[in-house]
Amino acid sequence: MKEASIAVAGATGVVGREFLKVLEQRRFPASQVRLLASQRSAGKRLQVMGQELVVEETTPDSFRDIDIAFISVSTELSGELAPIAVDAGALVIDDSSYFRMRPEVPLVVPEVNGEDVEWHRGIISIPNCSTTPLAMVGHALHNVDPIVRIVADTYQSVSGAGGEAMAELREQSRTLLDDGRADPQALTDQIGFNIIPRIDSFLPDGYTREEQKMMEETRKIMHAPGIALSATCVRVPVYISHSAAVHIELERPMDPREARDLFDGMPGMKVLDSPEEGLYPMPWNVAGTDDVFVGRIRKDVSHPNGLAMWVVADNLRKGAALNAIQIAEEVLKRGSLTPTKAGGVPQAS
Amino acid sequence: MKEASIAVAGATGVVGREFLKVLEQRRFPASQVRLLASQRSAGKRLQVMGQELVVEETTPDSFRDIDIAFISVSTELSGELAPIAVDAGALVIDDSSYFRMRPEVPLVVPEVNGEDVEWHRGIISIPNCSTTPLAMVGHALHNVDPIVRIVADTYQSVSGAGGEAMAELREQSRTLLDDGRADPQALTDQIGFNIIPRIDSFLPDGYTREEQKMMEETRKIMHAPGIALSATCVRVPVYISHSAAVHIELERPMDPREARDLFDGMPGMKVLDSPEEGLYPMPWNVAGTDDVFVGRIRKDVSHPNGLAMWVVADNLRKGAALNAIQIAEEVLKRGSLTPTKAGGVPQAS
Repeated sequence: MKEASIAVAGATGVVGREFLKVLEQRRFPASQVRLLASQRSAGKRLQVMGQELVVEETTPDSFRDIDIAFISVSTELSGELAPIAVDAGALVIDDSSYFRMRPEVPLVVPEVNGEDVEWHRGIISIPNCSTTPLAMVGHALHNVDPIVRIVADTYQSVSGAGGEAMAELREQSRTLLDDGRADPQALTDQIGFNIIPRIDSFLPDGYTREEQKMMEETRKIMHAPGIALSATCVRVPVYISHSAAVHIELERPMDPREARDLFDGMPGMKVLDSPEEGLYPMPWNVAGTDDVFVGRIRKDVSHPNGLAMWVVADNLRKGAALNAIQIAEEVLKRGSLTPTKAGGVPQAS
Repeated sequence: MKEASIAVAGATGVVGREFLKVLEQRRFPASQVRLLASQRSAGKRLQVMGQELVVEETTPDSFRDIDIAFISVSTELSGELAPIAVDAGALVIDDSSYFRMRPEVPLVVPEVNGEDVEWHRGIISIPNCSTTPLAMVGHALHNVDPIVRIVADTYQSVSGAGGEAMAELREQSRTLLDDGRADPQALTDQIGFNIIPRIDSFLPDGYTREEQKMMEETRKIMHAPGIALSATCVRVPVYISHSAAVHIELERPMDPREARDLFDGMPGMKVLDSPEEGLYPMPWNVAGTDDVFVGRIRKDVSHPNGLAMWVVADNLRKGAALNAIQIAEEVLKRGSLTPTKAGGVPQAS
């Protein structure tokens, strides 16, 4: 595998910091690492792969001589920075929703559609953190028994909303334990000892943008535009890891044991499903790990071809930083740093 | 309405205490109130309807001269106490799962099947706290457009597991905020800043007893044995109120506005659904209220006849204490204190 010079925009955010950890853990072949952030964070020093680096303010020059630019900033800022990085000759791996659904932008979970890194015009998007686990679960089944419909209700941690939301959960919980009142700032509503049935803004059809992302992105990653999908995305008072109750209808009935074997055989997935021993995935036992964990795999008794299950993944790792690095590894492996002129999303059912 | 002498078994538990509050708030026509609990709690003094009463230890004599015995104790103990109370001549309104699915025992949510209090053999059961809101939502729609299938994933508060679980959430959260370790006692797993995809024990088919209750009880209350139902029941770090993401398939398509009107017109239900103003039901804004709140009412885009919604109710009130008192009111209104010899569950689709 060749080496690559990389820039990390948003290096001081929760995903950025996790990214630097994963970079080191996977011994990513970086010839150079440049850390970028807003003016406010410039000058901070972070440990990366055994050396201390100074965070620089992001400027148009930041991406000069960079092979791969990882961008994990606000959606709006991604929209500004990514084209600058592409113009400077970098391949952008972007964490925001800004480019994800554009037909000329691959949206990639390497275990599902790694081949899509071979066509791009300078930008590859990583999916929303609640989408990635669902796409992996879906992919494991879909190739064997096509999926007709998915209903997924989520239990998403506050780190999906960034470091300020994590601090808010901590401080607000303490305040509420001391009989104080909640004063939501980073999130729309009280999160301490409460749950919020809303992530991101509302659309005219009553779904939220987060739910829409989960539904549209899953279909795009799986190359399965025909799957019917409904989601309710809910914020819960948990720091790290997103969970989901998932109900899947297949074309034909499938024994839960077969589903278990398919998940077991899928790279990046782990089955943790021994109810009799009290073993099932939960945020606290999944946070900090790399895999998508599935448990409570059972026949969905409400549909002859149904399966029900419980899926948990670390939203900062597989849901963001790890997936981004895996995409970079896939790009280097396939030698597809250079944009292709042709493109478009290959569609298959 | 005539008066009734009542006994409250489990008076010092979280449901028992809520029960005494509701008794007072609704000015229940009690000629006498007897508070019963275990030996451990005997001698405690509680305020009830303006007077201080001493909690007595429950004995076979406790139900003498009692018209209605409210029992909110462990399932096992309900199984022992209820027959004793019935033998003493009391009508038992039982909060446990012990009798609920027996064909000779009515399982009642007064707004849904109040008429079922007219046949009983001395015991009327109230549903599980996660069932009642679902049965009310289902009932509002089912009479207009029959329900084919329901998928419901819950977000249940710790008070559903009793006072010790509430204390555990409080203490454990404090410990974790101070960087201590969780030591689960009342619940199976860590609940502070975590969620647990398991309530009650596991059945051979992979569902939990809690999920089975929700599925079976909903059908019995609604007199709708044909509805297909699947649930995932999850404990979340919230003190009071159970929430659920609910996906319903009807026989024919229904406009979400019609569903809203049906919910609005249903006694005991409130629509709180103004996403543009950030209004949706959540545990903290529903706890302490009497109604089942519905929000996020939208077309379920994954099914042509689908509706999706978000349902929240105070599990101690409508989920338990309030529903029990409403059953007693219904019994007094209909003059059905005395057991009928005939009985059995009337079945209709």
